[in-house]
Amino acid sequence: MSGDVKAYMQRLGQQARAAATVVASADAGQKNAALLKIAAVLDASRAQIHQANQKDLENGRQNGLNDAMLDRLALTSDRVDNMIEGLKQVAALPDPVGNISDLHYVPSGIQIGKMRVPLGVIGIIYESRPNVTVEAASLCLKSGNATILRGGSEAIHSNQAIARCIREGLESTGLPVDAVQVLEITDREAVGELITMPEFVDVIVPRGGKGLIERISRDARVTVIKHLDGICHVYIDDRADPDKAERIAVNAKTHRYGTCNTMETLLVHKDIAGGVLPVLANAYAEKGVELRGCPRTRSIIPSAIEATEEDWSTEYLAPVLSIKVVDRMEDAITHINHYGSHHTDAIVTEDFSRARKFLREVDSSSVMVNASTRFADGFEYGLGAEIGISTDKIHARGPVGLEGLTSEKYVVLGDGHVRQ
Amino acid sequence: MSGDVKAYMQRLGQQARAAATVVASADAGQKNAALLKIAAVLDASRAQIHQANQKDLENGRQNGLNDAMLDRLALTSDRVDNMIEGLKQVAALPDPVGNISDLHYVPSGIQIGKMRVPLGVIGIIYESRPNVTVEAASLCLKSGNATILRGGSEAIHSNQAIARCIREGLESTGLPVDAVQVLEITDREAVGELITMPEFVDVIVPRGGKGLIERISRDARVTVIKHLDGICHVYIDDRADPDKAERIAVNAKTHRYGTCNTMETLLVHKDIAGGVLPVLANAYAEKGVELRGCPRTRSIIPSAIEATEEDWSTEYLAPVLSIKVVDRMEDAITHINHYGSHHTDAIVTEDFSRARKFLREVDSSSVMVNASTRFADGFEYGLGAEIGISTDKIHARGPVGLEGLTSEKYVVLGDGHVRQ
Repeated sequence: MSGDVKAYMQRLGQQARAAATVVASADAGQKNAALLKIAAVLDASRAQIHQANQKDLENGRQNGLNDAMLDRLALTSDRVDNMIEGLKQVAALPDPVGNISDLHYVPSGIQIGKMRVPLGVIGIIYESRPNVTVEAASLCLKSGNATILRGGSEAIHSNQAIARCIREGLESTGLPVDAVQVLEITDREAVGELITMPEFVDVIVPRGGKGLIERISRDARVTVIKHLDGICHVYIDDRADPDKAERIAVNAKTHRYGTCNTMETLLVHKDIAGGVLPVLANAYAEKGVELRGCPRTRSIIPSAIEATEEDWSTEYLAPVLSIKVVDRMEDAITHINHYGSHHTDAIVTEDFSRARKFLREVDSSSVMVNASTRFADGFEYGLGAEIGISTDKIHARGPVGLEGLTSEKYVVLGDGHVRQ
Repeated sequence: MSGDVKAYMQRLGQQARAAATVVASADAGQKNAALLKIAAVLDASRAQIHQANQKDLENGRQNGLNDAMLDRLALTSDRVDNMIEGLKQVAALPDPVGNISDLHYVPSGIQIGKMRVPLGVIGIIYESRPNVTVEAASLCLKSGNATILRGGSEAIHSNQAIARCIREGLESTGLPVDAVQVLEITDREAVGELITMPEFVDVIVPRGGKGLIERISRDARVTVIKHLDGICHVYIDDRADPDKAERIAVNAKTHRYGTCNTMETLLVHKDIAGGVLPVLANAYAEKGVELRGCPRTRSIIPSAIEATEEDWSTEYLAPVLSIKVVDRMEDAITHINHYGSHHTDAIVTEDFSRARKFLREVDSSSVMVNASTRFADGFEYGLGAEIGISTDKIHARGPVGLEGLTSEKYVVLGDGHVRQ
């Protein structure tokens, strides 16, 4: 069996590599036509998708999936609408491939520029949500890459139904059907193969829990564009406008609890803590947010639980917030760079020099002044869509959209120039 | 002993990590002052450097190093001059760190831009040439990174003498001495530790033979910016200007034989082969270049040896050239993408559409029209200097200068903005 899985994955890899060279030079019109055609086929295949999804849901219930997991698995009519809308949005985005930037003459007389090019073959590994199949496939296709998708075993029928729609859309617009391949097997070894075939796969994007991502990063033989924790901070400086501070601190925590750009720790300058913390405590109490504080916080908010060392490096993804009072902005920066996850961190201040220093010294993929951490998102940043948020420094950092799925090569133009 | 090496490397890693946060926010003036001070100290320490180098050369001779190896190891007065000159050049380059690009408003009213930031800690592994110590250290320092350098064991005394100069330059300008650390031990295990400490080292740049680079890539737990082969092509199209074609084909092969951007295979369109190949054969004969050809090439140049399948994927690094006649440009592109190493490839043509297609479809880090492959170089590209040429697609491609040693983070500016 092991040999079979390996052979199957190698075949997928070869097919992806061959398809990648074709989609790399496909023009935007053709890729957009395919995306819109896939949307149309999805729309016409709602009954088949529903049927396949029902099978997955039934199996899931028999296998004891909890309600949250079943909810993620369900392809409601709204979610199919969203997939269709997503495809149209990606079709409407500008095509990054082939863009030449900074073409300029150098002293030898040649012109040098950079052309944006696809990465090649992208492997995507994701958990139960079957709508990721369309999202990921559309971004990879638009950026000129071939994809191999490995969804969760509990969503296998839904993913196969969606894969058929994608294949039909590709075929009817003359693009290679192997440009998007969805694994037909659910063997765990398949993942092991996918992440260790550098000859066929150029980059891996895992989407799922931290355990999945850590496992893949440890074992992969190719670059992994990964997002681990989102331990985001807001620091309220003593020179903050209290209204802005309260608005941002409430929004960053309570707008949504389960997202990676939600604030998990609030840092407050000692000279403004007495002013803003009681107001914030009321606002959080209204929303049912549990507060855990350092001793100085607790002297201002007596209802706060005592924060432990562990709290400072915990991503709650829940209505829980840790709060720490600091003596100076520099201590906030040190805390963030030490305990944070280099995802998204914000300062609230009206002080120009502090804003400037915070922006430079906080080592995170997004650093903000007077804005809610919740803005760290591909749509809000105008990338159109994102395949994930990278907390790495290499290759891609922050929300990864179409451009993050490409690279650049040098182009050199001469007129018979030779090197002296 | 093994535990000792591990502990030693961990200590270096911790020191580097601490130093990295300081150099990341050092301003350009301070970094330039350090670079110029290191140059001055090197100049004042010529006697000590010479003495240390003599010790390495003596040991090398006793250990049976051949003349080429001893030559690479030798720090002549000219080479010390070059190190000093190199430091001044890097000091004169613009500092990429902190540059904010594309700062623009989005519909929510926030401003979004990207700030260039250092990678953190860079590990450099290189072979005998001790002048690499200064080159690599200066580029990493200027780009705001800390470095751990591991040179060849045969150059240990020279490298330590240079390391002392670097340390003195850093210290006297108030930068942390641990910003540049040169290993004091020559144990092989040290390399194994260096490439598997993702907590302390962010990226590895190996500089040396293919064997070294392959070994490091296989075992590393962090991203490796690597350059494997340089199997570069020139394709002479039937619509080429024969004068330009001959000039470029001669320059690309004979300007220097041992460099990675030297042409190793010449591809010629069948309709122009009879015209250009005899002229080229004479030019190559004059320079003593051995020719290996496909059957059609040999019918035009009878003196050419028969090329084997292996020739098409060989980096000779020597006065040897393989030549193949092709039917159409598309066959040249297929050949290049299949047998090449994605380094640098050029077309010679006066045809606009073919130039456009070649630029788009050849999957190499540098793609050229009517220019010699020898131009693929950090200095020629105006990067000022290069730490290497990457044949990877992820993160950095082509000549890697200061910018290749940095990443970008998002900066977001608001005025109390929250997400709706």
